[in-house]
Amino acid sequence: MKREDFLREYVSHMKIESTTMTVNQLIQKFDAAGCFGAGRVATACDIFEKMVRDKNCTVFLTVAGAIVPAGLRTVIADLIRKRRVDVVVSTAANMVHDLIEAFGGHHYKGHWLVDDFTLYKYHIYRIYDIFVTEEDYLKLDAGLSDMFDEIARDNNNQPLATHEFVWEIGKRLKDPNSIVRAAYETKTPLFLPAIRDSEFGFIYWLYQQRAKSKQLLQVDAFKEVSEIMNIASNSDRLGMVVLGGGVPRNTVQHAAVTAKRGLDYAVIITMDRPETGGLSGSTLEETISWGKVKRTAEKVMVIGDVLIVFPLMVASLEERLNKKPL
Amino acid sequence: MKREDFLREYVSHMKIESTTMTVNQLIQKFDAAGCFGAGRVATACDIFEKMVRDKNCTVFLTVAGAIVPAGLRTVIADLIRKRRVDVVVSTAANMVHDLIEAFGGHHYKGHWLVDDFTLYKYHIYRIYDIFVTEEDYLKLDAGLSDMFDEIARDNNNQPLATHEFVWEIGKRLKDPNSIVRAAYETKTPLFLPAIRDSEFGFIYWLYQQRAKSKQLLQVDAFKEVSEIMNIASNSDRLGMVVLGGGVPRNTVQHAAVTAKRGLDYAVIITMDRPETGGLSGSTLEETISWGKVKRTAEKVMVIGDVLIVFPLMVASLEERLNKKPL
Amino acid sequence: MKREDFLREYVSHMKIESTTMTVNQLIQKFDAAGCFGAGRVATACDIFEKMVRDKNCTVFLTVAGAIVPAGLRTVIADLIRKRRVDVVVSTAANMVHDLIEAFGGHHYKGHWLVDDFTLYKYHIYRIYDIFVTEEDYLKLDAGLSDMFDEIARDNNNQPLATHEFVWEIGKRLKDPNSIVRAAYETKTPLFLPAIRDSEFGFIYWLYQQRAKSKQLLQVDAFKEVSEIMNIASNSDRLGMVVLGGGVPRNTVQHAAVTAKRGLDYAVIITMDRPETGGLSGSTLEETISWGKVKRTAEKVMVIGDVLIVFPLMVASLEERLNKKPL
Amino acid sequence: MKREDFLREYVSHMKIESTTMTVNQLIQKFDAAGCFGAGRVATACDIFEKMVRDKNCTVFLTVAGAIVPAGLRTVIADLIRKRRVDVVVSTAANMVHDLIEAFGGHHYKGHWLVDDFTLYKYHIYRIYDIFVTEEDYLKLDAGLSDMFDEIARDNNNQPLATHEFVWEIGKRLKDPNSIVRAAYETKTPLFLPAIRDSEFGFIYWLYQQRAKSKQLLQVDAFKEVSEIMNIASNSDRLGMVVLGGGVPRNTVQHAAVTAKRGLDYAVIITMDRPETGGLSGSTLEETISWGKVKRTAEKVMVIGDVLIVFPLMVASLEERLNKKPL
Repeated sequence: MKREDFLREYVSHMKIESTTMTVNQLIQKFDAAGCFGAGRVATACDIFEKMVRDKNCTVFLTVAGAIVPAGLRTVIADLIRKRRVDVVVSTAANMVHDLIEAFGGHHYKGHWLVDDFTLYKYHIYRIYDIFVTEEDYLKLDAGLSDMFDEIARDNNNQPLATHEFVWEIGKRLKDPNSIVRAAYETKTPLFLPAIRDSEFGFIYWLYQQRAKSKQLLQVDAFKEVSEIMNIASNSDRLGMVVLGGGVPRNTVQHAAVTAKRGLDYAVIITMDRPETGGLSGSTLEETISWGKVKRTAEKVMVIGDVLIVFPLMVASLEERLNKKPL
Repeated sequence: MKREDFLREYVSHMKIESTTMTVNQLIQKFDAAGCFGAGRVATACDIFEKMVRDKNCTVFLTVAGAIVPAGLRTVIADLIRKRRVDVVVSTAANMVHDLIEAFGGHHYKGHWLVDDFTLYKYHIYRIYDIFVTEEDYLKLDAGLSDMFDEIARDNNNQPLATHEFVWEIGKRLKDPNSIVRAAYETKTPLFLPAIRDSEFGFIYWLYQQRAKSKQLLQVDAFKEVSEIMNIASNSDRLGMVVLGGGVPRNTVQHAAVTAKRGLDYAVIITMDRPETGGLSGSTLEETISWGKVKRTAEKVMVIGDVLIVFPLMVASLEERLNKKPL
Repeated sequence: MKREDFLREYVSHMKIESTTMTVNQLIQKFDAAGCFGAGRVATACDIFEKMVRDKNCTVFLTVAGAIVPAGLRTVIADLIRKRRVDVVVSTAANMVHDLIEAFGGHHYKGHWLVDDFTLYKYHIYRIYDIFVTEEDYLKLDAGLSDMFDEIARDNNNQPLATHEFVWEIGKRLKDPNSIVRAAYETKTPLFLPAIRDSEFGFIYWLYQQRAKSKQLLQVDAFKEVSEIMNIASNSDRLGMVVLGGGVPRNTVQHAAVTAKRGLDYAVIITMDRPETGGLSGSTLEETISWGKVKRTAEKVMVIGDVLIVFPLMVASLEERLNKKPL
Repeated sequence: MKREDFLREYVSHMKIESTTMTVNQLIQKFDAAGCFGAGRVATACDIFEKMVRDKNCTVFLTVAGAIVPAGLRTVIADLIRKRRVDVVVSTAANMVHDLIEAFGGHHYKGHWLVDDFTLYKYHIYRIYDIFVTEEDYLKLDAGLSDMFDEIARDNNNQPLATHEFVWEIGKRLKDPNSIVRAAYETKTPLFLPAIRDSEFGFIYWLYQQRAKSKQLLQVDAFKEVSEIMNIASNSDRLGMVVLGGGVPRNTVQHAAVTAKRGLDYAVIITMDRPETGGLSGSTLEETISWGKVKRTAEKVMVIGDVLIVFPLMVASLEERLNKKPL
């Protein structure tokens, strides 16, 4: 590369006008500046738009960290309903929190500096600055374990994959704001690869102890594998938006490399870093060595809080989709 | 609290003698200084010693992040063999890497700044600064999928829990340095709650396509739940050492609160932080609100790299255990 | 506090409409959700608005990290010109980069993954994903050292405080987009407490070796102290917006506690954390013990990238200021 | 590079023997494993040893973050006295804390979870989990401002550089454990480039108001520049150990590139990361583009808590220095 190749474009300093500015207009300023987090967010918006507009691309959204209770429940449900995303892979806990609201419970605005033992005595659980009550969990435990017998019976006691199990629950919900309901209605696969590690595990344990039938509902840990493999291998192109990381990110990347030649688009939003060697913080460069993400893929990793960055991206996306394509 | 209660003890500045100093002697200096990371590591060593010495305490070790390929394989296998820990909960990937070595493969010292596309063309995978070859994965794929028919047959095609499945593998291994083998020999439960999210998932998929029997090996996602619940409820006291976080940490904490009144000892080593609301970075204070960790528990969270901090703790522990108890 | 006091307000899930949404409308959604980073950013916007609207509040803006070259030069210059902020305390390097552009140089959009030795051979310097050329530094070195004789002569060789020195430079600039020029024109004090640690130090060294007069320009390290103390003690209320941390944050907090009873408003945007004990990551709670920030102050710390968060805050502020006050 | 070049060396898993293990023996295990933080710490120890053993290398130690009050005061003073390091560049606050103890004050082991307003009322200041009392600050204020008249008089009211000022203080101290005293006794330059941003600034302000002489003590912000430049240019080789980052790191790097062709050895211990573009988190690769660190330099950046990592390095160094060279 010649010297001038490194010096092609100036940083254009952002100018915030005194008048009303839309989210996407601000993202355009981020793009013109192009550095540090602003540049990465702008790139993330471009890639997100491209994968959503690409009719031959299957878009995987991965969900980790307590972002559903924290305020992104509707954002995610709407993305499913509007078919901006085709497949969702989530931690089970996020769907537990979706169901807590579907069963009439709530999440409360709390604070991160409180006396946790006082909360304990009040049967209030804390997730950073969110509060949830024990009674809302009990409501979920009761409502969901009741469904289990029915689901087992309806499926002739055949082992289910996690997404089949999720759809069975969604079928029985009424809350239109529920992510699980939205996945069921749109037949969007919603995989929970670590389903056992959540309140689902506890509810299963309760259900098991008092099940009416000897033939228990069974969830096969591996059954979903062939399904996600099929989705990946039957797609022309693969896109991924990672919220947080963890098992959901790994699951999608693994499917992309084993069933297909890797992802074509990838956006990761995380606060995790590469140095300690965990998957969540691993760079997109590293994924190239595995073939999980293609060398030629459009890809970016934003170091930031999902609750700040992802709504920005979705607002920018919707504004762009109202306009003509790039 | 009176003013003097805040001013009880001076920071004793560390003094590094020019002569030979043992790891535990350095930890004693950390303890005397008592601040920032040094203070937390010293406290972690004290709590680790206490839970190991406490004959009525069940010690859970949780393993996440690629720490087995990075050099802690023997450390963990030895802790199991010496029965310093009673239960292990791990990401499946760490056990995949244990098995790669058990099947004759290797991990190589690499670098984090390389051209990943070159690695890709050479069929070398990168985990931060570790390299693994595709052929070592293929060796694992072949070796392990061969075991699957046999395991299914030996168990009369009954669905297995993840720890039963792990023991079945361990039974068939010869490598004495293997964590999986050590768990089998000592009958230490080794749970993999997200087993599907790993090369196990891919190998299962391979096996499924060419299985000799129609009755496939099946792993029940929920079957292990009652087992870990029983272990917790049958213990007088519960201790936990978290390496990294993720699903393994959540699984242990969840068992501790649902089967028992929470953990009595807890040490967490992580680089994750609380602000984004993920479980891995959540504070030990937050866990009190849930009852996952007791208010009165001895507990500490060390912000640091597991590869640095945990060997320090183990070396200090072994040195202490050679002496008379506190 | 009673149980119900913890459960006063639900998390309202964000809804991103398909139509055009302004930045401030999105911030209102952040506010309604109220959790994790979104809640903190919303609070930061509220506090920023309040301190700017408060006619008896002196607003200090502190600038650290390479945010001026990265695209915030105009944002900061505009805040000064519009008198949204009353005092600026900055790392010297940020003003060096302001001057590089004032002297006709540029910052270029680069990348964080390049061969740095190639850049070295091309005399291109890298700041994460920004490139700057040596010739633009040389232009600055020449232009600025020429000013030094003149500044020394104009001030009768009296030692200057850093803000006086900055104004002397600003007086001699023509670039209306320059932060230094804006500070001079509006007589906004712009302190550089660590001025020596920057290209200013090198330029001084050059100047010193070839100065025409024996009486050198002199900058008194301590002279600015009484000035910032006077500003603080003559203000009814004090507000602070910290971009990054470092010496600038410490300087403002120290003035607030020694000249006054602490800050009344404080917003901090940083990626630094408290555990290692550095000032930049220290919590706002910690500052209460010192009296640097009042217990009753409106205050929030946002964990995030300044390039993402601060433009959001400024866009929200300007939109709000166009409307009637709260 | 050929395929086999990437696969030269296995990860040797650490083995913690049950018997006594010295710190340096553990570091050797880190070296054999060679990955993640362990590998970086082992490399840091090797480089530190080399630069200390290299008789033609000037070793710069940079000090930031509140590590002196946290327990490293003696470690640093001993490194100076043993002439392991040749130049120290520090934040002023660390030397303020050194002087607090030299004037008979103390730092106390505290906690990070306390009611800071209670501390405020008790006139106790908090630095993460360290407590300091107001009376110990007052003792410092009184003792130090008394010295100022004397120092001004002894220097005929000539402006001082920061290291000259520090030596003048050191000359008047009796505490043999003081870093400032050690620097004076060994004539080790100890630069405080941001001296004004600390209690020194406040004490100067006090002194100024009641000074007996009209001719005030004056510290010239730029005077030290030529001194550090001379040290660098008169050295055959340059080494740097960075504790934390900030102004001290920048000062040394800047001198290395302007007076010399960059550093030959560099070890950085920090928790800061590159993504937000701040100097403290910038990579050693980035410094190559500037010429601050040579491409051929031996260099490593450890992501970790200085209070954990640096004592390990010093203990390992001293153990090695007792043996014959590599």
